[in-house]
Amino acid sequence: MAHSIDEPVSATGGDGLVRVRLDLGYDGTDFFGWASQPGRRTVQATLVEALSTILRAPVRVTVAGRTDTGVHAVGQVAHLDLPVRLWQEHQAKLVRRLAGVLPPDVRVFAAVAAAADFDARFAASWRRYGYRIWDGEGGPNPLRRHDTVAWRRPLDATAMSAAARLLVGEHDFAAFCRARAGSSTIRGLQELTVRRDGQLLELEVQADAFCHSMVRSLVGALAAVGEGLRPVSWPASLLQWDRRCDQITVAPARGLTLLEVGYPPDAELAERVNRTRAFRGRVEPAG
Amino acid sequence: MAHSIDEPVSATGGDGLVRVRLDLGYDGTDFFGWASQPGRRTVQATLVEALSTILRAPVRVTVAGRTDTGVHAVGQVAHLDLPVRLWQEHQAKLVRRLAGVLPPDVRVFAAVAAAADFDARFAASWRRYGYRIWDGEGGPNPLRRHDTVAWRRPLDATAMSAAARLLVGEHDFAAFCRARAGSSTIRGLQELTVRRDGQLLELEVQADAFCHSMVRSLVGALAAVGEGLRPVSWPASLLQWDRRCDQITVAPARGLTLLEVGYPPDAELAERVNRTRAFRGRVEPAG
Repeated sequence: MAHSIDEPVSATGGDGLVRVRLDLGYDGTDFFGWASQPGRRTVQATLVEALSTILRAPVRVTVAGRTDTGVHAVGQVAHLDLPVRLWQEHQAKLVRRLAGVLPPDVRVFAAVAAAADFDARFAASWRRYGYRIWDGEGGPNPLRRHDTVAWRRPLDATAMSAAARLLVGEHDFAAFCRARAGSSTIRGLQELTVRRDGQLLELEVQADAFCHSMVRSLVGALAAVGEGLRPVSWPASLLQWDRRCDQITVAPARGLTLLEVGYPPDAELAERVNRTRAFRGRVEPAG
Repeated sequence: MAHSIDEPVSATGGDGLVRVRLDLGYDGTDFFGWASQPGRRTVQATLVEALSTILRAPVRVTVAGRTDTGVHAVGQVAHLDLPVRLWQEHQAKLVRRLAGVLPPDVRVFAAVAAAADFDARFAASWRRYGYRIWDGEGGPNPLRRHDTVAWRRPLDATAMSAAARLLVGEHDFAAFCRARAGSSTIRGLQELTVRRDGQLLELEVQADAFCHSMVRSLVGALAAVGEGLRPVSWPASLLQWDRRCDQITVAPARGLTLLEVGYPPDAELAERVNRTRAFRGRVEPAG
């Protein structure tokens, strides 16, 4: 079988490796999250096994947002390094081959040679998540039941929206984060919106990075406002806290989906990676 | 337990019955379609069983669009007649009780007293269906894999869209219908659109009614254009046929969802029902 070997590839300097970017999605329902764990079905282990089977070589994959058990993704990004020859041999058919080997709850939509400075995790300039809540008493649209949380009480989306606006900006989100020694909990929250469409509430949130359980804690705090249990000002008042607030109920994983990850132009990737790495003690940027 | 009995209800004349409208949705994957069949799991049988359990009375349910095996619905409409006393006893909690009794792949979103002339099937003035195709070689977004068809070849959405426009209007759709003795195959196709969003194609089609397998035949004919196997003019050229065209591949059920059913204002319901019934020999309006 003939393979084209004259297509341009981006190799990392002189070491003969190509940095490959993967765009992927998964239904998190039957996974114990992204990160490999012995004896458990995880997205990372499933993907690495499929890649190793096709490429007949061991691979290491780095991801933009390490999602928890039950959390979904439609715009997840990962990278891996492959020897130039191996990439040239497989690039044209890698996506199709992965479709044949991966289970239907994980799909790789694209695999392309990226700039040498591209880093799925450290070069990301923002992550965007969506959260779906159904507050009609009949329960969620069956076709979306796997990525929608059924809420028992009706929610006031207007109040939630007002509370959300007060959280936007660079703040210390300690109240909304699971503690992690030595890590900063300061994050730049670029957007947080609540939209009602009939009995469905769609929340979207974008930040430079999120600390652990932060999105689900934000949703839980807003839902308390939506139920009328807390005033509109309450979630933002928690920004004063210097530690996790145990009055916040973390919303279920099932409603959460990683929608998109943003990166700067190629020429600015190296600078972005350096900035993130320097900031690493403060910020854990993985999702 | 106290029930409010002073809410206005619409009863059908003097016979003490209330006509109740149900709005429902289902994931058709694990159903043999809408209509009850001995020994098979169908949406109708599942719904009737749940209603009978809750109401402790036998019920008959009439539906707007009798969907085939594997076809989904988010905006299905049905009606049933209940004795006034039974409705008054159950109306406030019926939707919540149905949510507790029905399996998660069927949900009733609303149950309300309708006008006496309301008829889910014969009063409908239009039905609207959606069809989802993924033509990226990696395969569909895992969260939507149950209602999206994976297409093996890339599709030209612009060509499909041009072909779709030529089909709009009142025509004899015999080429696109499974034969049914004595029934007309003339339909008013009000809208047929093809929209691309990345690797996803979303088709939407609205008509006064559809004959059996018509939507999936329209999709199959447009896909042949999208693959470049047929010219843009081909689907509309089939409108000349007076019988089913065996050159059309019927697209898989999995991609098809009944999105919405439209009804005229209450004052025009009776007229609409009469018109549909008079037309019944020509048009089978249930799909």
